[in-house]
Amino acid sequence: MRFTTSKDNLLEGINIVQKAVSTKSSLAVLEGILVECGDKLKLTGNDLEIGIECFVEADIIQKGAVVIDSRMFGEIVRRLPDSEVFIESNDNDIVTIECENSHFEIHGLNAEGFPALPVINEESSFTISQKTLRDMIRQTIFAVSVDDNRPILTGTLIEIEDNNITFVSCDSYRVALRRMPLESGNLSINKVVPGKTLNELVKILQPVDDNVTIFSTRNQILFDTGKYKLVSRLLEGEYLKYRSFIPDNFETRIVVNTKQLLSAIERASLVIMSNERRYPLNIDIHDDVMKLHTSTNIGNANEELRIEMEGKDIEIRFNPRYFIEALRVIDDEVVEVCFTNDVGPCIIKPVEGDAFIYLIVPLRK
Amino acid sequence: MRFTTSKDNLLEGINIVQKAVSTKSSLAVLEGILVECGDKLKLTGNDLEIGIECFVEADIIQKGAVVIDSRMFGEIVRRLPDSEVFIESNDNDIVTIECENSHFEIHGLNAEGFPALPVINEESSFTISQKTLRDMIRQTIFAVSVDDNRPILTGTLIEIEDNNITFVSCDSYRVALRRMPLESGNLSINKVVPGKTLNELVKILQPVDDNVTIFSTRNQILFDTGKYKLVSRLLEGEYLKYRSFIPDNFETRIVVNTKQLLSAIERASLVIMSNERRYPLNIDIHDDVMKLHTSTNIGNANEELRIEMEGKDIEIRFNPRYFIEALRVIDDEVVEVCFTNDVGPCIIKPVEGDAFIYLIVPLRK
Repeated sequence: MRFTTSKDNLLEGINIVQKAVSTKSSLAVLEGILVECGDKLKLTGNDLEIGIECFVEADIIQKGAVVIDSRMFGEIVRRLPDSEVFIESNDNDIVTIECENSHFEIHGLNAEGFPALPVINEESSFTISQKTLRDMIRQTIFAVSVDDNRPILTGTLIEIEDNNITFVSCDSYRVALRRMPLESGNLSINKVVPGKTLNELVKILQPVDDNVTIFSTRNQILFDTGKYKLVSRLLEGEYLKYRSFIPDNFETRIVVNTKQLLSAIERASLVIMSNERRYPLNIDIHDDVMKLHTSTNIGNANEELRIEMEGKDIEIRFNPRYFIEALRVIDDEVVEVCFTNDVGPCIIKPVEGDAFIYLIVPLRK
Repeated sequence: MRFTTSKDNLLEGINIVQKAVSTKSSLAVLEGILVECGDKLKLTGNDLEIGIECFVEADIIQKGAVVIDSRMFGEIVRRLPDSEVFIESNDNDIVTIECENSHFEIHGLNAEGFPALPVINEESSFTISQKTLRDMIRQTIFAVSVDDNRPILTGTLIEIEDNNITFVSCDSYRVALRRMPLESGNLSINKVVPGKTLNELVKILQPVDDNVTIFSTRNQILFDTGKYKLVSRLLEGEYLKYRSFIPDNFETRIVVNTKQLLSAIERASLVIMSNERRYPLNIDIHDDVMKLHTSTNIGNANEELRIEMEGKDIEIRFNPRYFIEALRVIDDEVVEVCFTNDVGPCIIKPVEGDAFIYLIVPLRK
């Protein structure tokens, strides 16, 4: 194998496929990047859960393939001068990397040991902008369950129905839901993507209008940005019937400034966070005022916010982290918070429309 | 105690004195900040090795003092709105912090338990700009020994003699020396400041021309910036006779671009760094070319640099980290590297003058 490419292009490709490389695996080949010269230069990372392949512009001199340790390859290329890079491998998988007056020879691994990415039948597909996909992941991923007892909840549901695409994450105490219109024709999809996959994908997606095409089979999903393809297994099983959890009868509704509410809860939580025991955030709403109160062995905090309210006064207790994580990802300046009653779930939603719903179950009194 | 101040001023003061607060101490009071209202508002942190006191502009309403947990105090103030902050403490050392609609009550500690800073007799003193002091620390601190067997080497020597101020750090393998002219009159000083003290001080010094006045007694040193005072114990004992180590007879001298040499050594070290065993950096100088070579079980790296040379060809081996750490703090575009011979120390110095000397002992062949 022999090719030349620019340092910048090569580094960009390495940074992308590294997201799918194991940092600690019992198989050395899984800690490597497959470098393949066919008609084009292709880099591949694959930790058997996620695989990413990326084409890099290059002048191919001789076809061939080799696996190079991902960390070493990344660090060498990152520190090369901004210039043309020459790479070749010989029959013993010794890799030569040259750039200006730098010359490296490192031990590679045979490409035959590298696991191939699963082949995805590119049939049932839809298209969405990188920016939208990035936002929808960012705004739901935090609510994915970390509890392995219900594996299906460690993923995010991607659902397409009636020309809407919905991302839903939930654990036993909350739901994060983000919805966007999508011209999907007759397409209807219901897939659960592992949280780990979306966590890596969101790091390489850019906030641009360029499209991502998403293909799925029964147990695999493929995200294709044109520059790179990310393949992941899907989680098997039925996702929760999340719709049935979301109440639509509310005794109390308030409208509040998102950032102000977030700051107030973050401050009130300071006396809680450094405690090992979990203390509640007490919310008391009456007379167009929202009072937040916390009290621990360190001390207590009180916050007051002017709000617009409708319905009954209410006193209710929550885990403040659930509010903080939801409010941090909401871009709307103002939100509506609706309380069913003082023991039922509350939801945070836009003042108009249904682009997002964050449901939070209160703590018992 | 009762006062009002602005959030920004208070936070700035907290950030400064926090550098002297223990993060983990068996004495709760050492994890706190002493807040004192006399004629002015004064904050003090003191971990018994370093003490910092800082005056903060404030309207004093009632005199008094209390100790507030440093981490909690910092986090609360950091998150307050940019507005006026009201703070008071009562006879039970309950501290109230109020700002707009935020209201905290936290348990403080009695001020009487807080250890007073040592009183420094402000006699023998000299003055230097913050920027110069910051640079001189930054350019020598990395060579301080981490080996407790020779405690004196865990500090930096500050020496004033013949209208020059010199900072020297060294361990058994290297010396870092930085020298600046200083109009000191007849003052002659020879003090060893703990590395930990300078590490904290360098974080709060600003790159500005404002002066720092430095006072010292037999076993204490005081840095006074006008805004804050930092007091530290000194290390006791005689510092090494560093002058006797620095050779002045060289078989080989080269002149080389600092950044290019640094980048080349950093790259050549990549195949070393991820190995547990220490491998050498081989340097081979001949015919106005400097060749760097490393070889490990991962692979090998070769770098070539054009240099100007004088004297004999030389082949010599070093720990690359010592070169990297010295070259990273040198601001000169070009440096001179002088080799005594292939077993003696080499020094890195400016092409003209003696503003710095980095001495490095080679590895045995």
